Amino acid sequence: MRQQRLLNPTLRDVPGDAEAASHRLMLRAGLIRQLSSGIYSYLPLGLKALQHIQTIVREEMDRAGAQEMLMPALHPAELWKASGRWDVYGPELMRLEDRHGREFALGATHEEVITTLVKDEIHSYKKLPVTLYQIQTKYRDERRPRFGLLRGREFLMKDAYSFDRSKSGLDASYQAMYDAYVNIFTRCGLQFRAVEADSGAIGGTDTHEFMALAEVGEDTIVHCPACQYAANMEKAVGRISNELASPSDVATTLQPTKIHTPGVTSIKQLSQFLHMDTKQMIKSLAVLADGKPVIVLVRGDLEINEIKLNHVLGVQEVTMLSEADITAIGSVAGFIGPIGLTNVTLIADTSIQGLRNAVIGANEADYHLQHVDVSRDLGDITYVDVRNVGLGESCIHCGHELAFAKGIEVGHVFKLGTTYSESLGATFSDENGLSEPMIMGCYGIGVSRVLAAVIEQHHDEKGIIWPAAIAPYSVHLLTVQVGDEAQMALSEEIYHTLTRAGFSVLWDDREERPGVKFNDADLLGFPLRLTVGKKTSERIVECKERHNGDLYEMNVEQLLAHCQSLFN
Amino acid sequence: MRQQRLLNPTLRDVPGDAEAASHRLMLRAGLIRQLSSGIYSYLPLGLKALQHIQTIVREEMDRAGAQEMLMPALHPAELWKASGRWDVYGPELMRLEDRHGREFALGATHEEVITTLVKDEIHSYKKLPVTLYQIQTKYRDERRPRFGLLRGREFLMKDAYSFDRSKSGLDASYQAMYDAYVNIFTRCGLQFRAVEADSGAIGGTDTHEFMALAEVGEDTIVHCPACQYAANMEKAVGRISNELASPSDVATTLQPTKIHTPGVTSIKQLSQFLHMDTKQMIKSLAVLADGKPVIVLVRGDLEINEIKLNHVLGVQEVTMLSEADITAIGSVAGFIGPIGLTNVTLIADTSIQGLRNAVIGANEADYHLQHVDVSRDLGDITYVDVRNVGLGESCIHCGHELAFAKGIEVGHVFKLGTTYSESLGATFSDENGLSEPMIMGCYGIGVSRVLAAVIEQHHDEKGIIWPAAIAPYSVHLLTVQVGDEAQMALSEEIYHTLTRAGFSVLWDDREERPGVKFNDADLLGFPLRLTVGKKTSERIVECKERHNGDLYEMNVEQLLAHCQSLFN
Repeated sequence: MRQQRLLNPTLRDVPGDAEAASHRLMLRAGLIRQLSSGIYSYLPLGLKALQHIQTIVREEMDRAGAQEMLMPALHPAELWKASGRWDVYGPELMRLEDRHGREFALGATHEEVITTLVKDEIHSYKKLPVTLYQIQTKYRDERRPRFGLLRGREFLMKDAYSFDRSKSGLDASYQAMYDAYVNIFTRCGLQFRAVEADSGAIGGTDTHEFMALAEVGEDTIVHCPACQYAANMEKAVGRISNELASPSDVATTLQPTKIHTPGVTSIKQLSQFLHMDTKQMIKSLAVLADGKPVIVLVRGDLEINEIKLNHVLGVQEVTMLSEADITAIGSVAGFIGPIGLTNVTLIADTSIQGLRNAVIGANEADYHLQHVDVSRDLGDITYVDVRNVGLGESCIHCGHELAFAKGIEVGHVFKLGTTYSESLGATFSDENGLSEPMIMGCYGIGVSRVLAAVIEQHHDEKGIIWPAAIAPYSVHLLTVQVGDEAQMALSEEIYHTLTRAGFSVLWDDREERPGVKFNDADLLGFPLRLTVGKKTSERIVECKERHNGDLYEMNVEQLLAHCQSLFN
Repeated sequence: MRQQRLLNPTLRDVPGDAEAASHRLMLRAGLIRQLSSGIYSYLPLGLKALQHIQTIVREEMDRAGAQEMLMPALHPAELWKASGRWDVYGPELMRLEDRHGREFALGATHEEVITTLVKDEIHSYKKLPVTLYQIQTKYRDERRPRFGLLRGREFLMKDAYSFDRSKSGLDASYQAMYDAYVNIFTRCGLQFRAVEADSGAIGGTDTHEFMALAEVGEDTIVHCPACQYAANMEKAVGRISNELASPSDVATTLQPTKIHTPGVTSIKQLSQFLHMDTKQMIKSLAVLADGKPVIVLVRGDLEINEIKLNHVLGVQEVTMLSEADITAIGSVAGFIGPIGLTNVTLIADTSIQGLRNAVIGANEADYHLQHVDVSRDLGDITYVDVRNVGLGESCIHCGHELAFAKGIEVGHVFKLGTTYSESLGATFSDENGLSEPMIMGCYGIGVSRVLAAVIEQHHDEKGIIWPAAIAPYSVHLLTVQVGDEAQMALSEEIYHTLTRAGFSVLWDDREERPGVKFNDADLLGFPLRLTVGKKTSERIVECKERHNGDLYEMNVEQLLAHCQSLFN
């Protein structure tokens, strides 16, 4: 391709609201343009990179035995009503009516469509297992689209669905997808972790998220630097030691004592007021779950994870207790504590287990209780894990201190079980003619998000540094003086030699100053830059490798072999 | 691919409303399934064929110098309002609101989006010409979706847009696309004609439709068997001779005379009543154009073409005159004629030019006038072409009698001119710094419709007969007895030999009766069927070519070379 004609509008500056590096670079390098919030056009170079990712995804999915198909984006509302998600999905699901007033959703995901299709087409165990996938445009009306392709409203996704007759079959299908995902992200040049994730409320069991590590990531990963353990915040567990918080020099015979703490209603204030570490305090969170008041206890320096809490309580959502409700259980907002309440369920996070000499609310305005010994004073409590793992917690597998990282969710594998096959009636007959629901898994890759994640991980201040497998072009051929016939002739010779050998070459034949060309080449970031300039008469070109900055000269006769060794 | 696991649910029977052969066969062969009216899922085999068409389209578009990109399906309403099409497009344009109440259209076409993008990114003549294309899903809420993929509501389209600085530039861009289309449809194995079409009301000039010839086609093509002339009904012109209709043995001196024709209000009734050929009559159509009454005259055996009429009258649409309006111009419904009316514009189709001894309405209930000589009695009329070409008309280029055919519109090339660049402000600066609107062309291919059109042209009563370039698989390998180890071993050997050599092979390893397998092979219709059966011990397989039914045996050692000669 000759650059003179390429639609590749590079920019010096980008809008201030482009916060993520990938977003800025994709705009600057002329890969994408925004049409509306969270909705983008792919210009030629952006599309080429996206297609390379698609090719990798297809190859690995096919290798794993999945079959490609293609489903529509317009979904009849009836299907989503049958699964129950028409009502629960909320405003993220875009909806419309056709000319006859029939309701449709724009597919945010395809469980309903694929399950209905498989229900109609597969009836016998003989046709199972089967894993079907598609690469297709999805629609989710994000409340806050941002970071360019990282959180868009119209985006490209690979979604796959497996149908098995047994749990062990699902395990195998899941593992095949898991392995394919490892291959895909590795080939895309991503640094990633597969983390245990929460399987949510829809009845699934195992689930892993594939997280590309990047500071801009909106998810926090907890991982162990010593063993393979990794999980996201909703799922991560750590081990806490309360020895530091309950030193032996504190008299254990002290009994709970009221202290006057006027106007002190938060843990932070309390810590300042008492000059005590928040680790020595217990937070009491008062919530309503299924209409019943629950007090959740967690160590003062830690946070409750709502998703863990919902699971423990077996509810979809909890709400905070109102002041009236707090009065009804015999307490006062800001001074809630676990001792002396009536008609309340107590739940304690493991972080307070064994805590001594702790401070809790006294259930009386302007008073707290100190010298509380959890084991002695709180009676028979069940301990559960409802907190976010905190700094300093150790790995439950190997004991090493856990570390934290930010990640972009680029993939997700999920054991769905029979939720959809039961609600939509996808059953099969086994060898004995008995009807059983199919056991499903679902597997997603944010294809356009992968593109952005790759750039998040592979760039410097000058521009993108494409991994070779995804680069829109492998070689950027620069002619310094397009008015110089010898330079143009040599460039053309190189261009044809390399393209005939199957290498993709973008030839910068623009009438621009060399500085502009070099800057654009760094910005576009193809793996190998070849500059045809001063040494044209000697048939020597300058080579620059983008990823390491290596700069060297080479005779044109050696170029083809050099490219073959670099790229093949 | 082994067929045992392939999602390929073949059917014996299909729904009665599947009228088109392609629709029936795509359902029966398990290529597609309907999700909702005009909305289909592509199963693995259907998608493979669709992807092969996409590859051909990409190769030819790239070869023609077009650049691929990808635009969204969600279009902000503002763009369509700016072009004026938000209001005029009607219910075919699907619309929705996002969570913030902002209006969007689901892209039915992308002139608005691409023109806005090019306006923002290209400002100088130096970056022109440029032709951009995408292969993308389109949405049109057809009033009556039918014929499967031939008229759907969600479908795959290749749309391209060219931007030029001059009319001659547009001519060249247009010709490049025209030539690419000829290559694409030829490679897809389609029998087609490029026909002159009407450029419609949006200000374009030249336009051609590419029509795949097929009885199920909803468009009628007029073409000359002797020269290259071809056009669709809206555009086609022919030459008519009224000598037959005005034989010399009819006295030319007879004057218009009233005849009593009680209750005879249609041409057909009149023909029966008078025992005269409808060619001897003149139909008078009374319409309102821009609020003014117009009488349109056409020979009794011919039909007025509304689009031609709209052009002649310079309006978007005409409506039929009401009875009250007919009274107001001095006539009576059913007996309208061109003589003696007041305040009416008369328009005559060339088909009545020179007609003598004709019958017209008398503008009086139950009366007609006979012995009308058009030249003598109707005064000074302007003759225009507003009819559908009729049977027996001759080619205006070579005089040969014109022929008719039915066609499926698979492609369309269109010189848009400056309609969109002016309404959306896409201008460029020329060498002198002067601002000019870009001159545009647009070019569409119904990719999914091509798939259906191919099947319309390539099938027999047993199933599909794929052209090799599009076939989901090249080779269908059948093992007669999958319980026979020798047959399975030989099949596996053939499978690996051919797939390693790059041929796509579907291996029917199902435990089915041979008859079922043979029938399915005919239905699926891949070019070469290889049957491993009785002569396995001699390493001989049976070959059958689907397109001509040739059946022959071959030693396995010769198979690879045979496939290479058949397919490469």
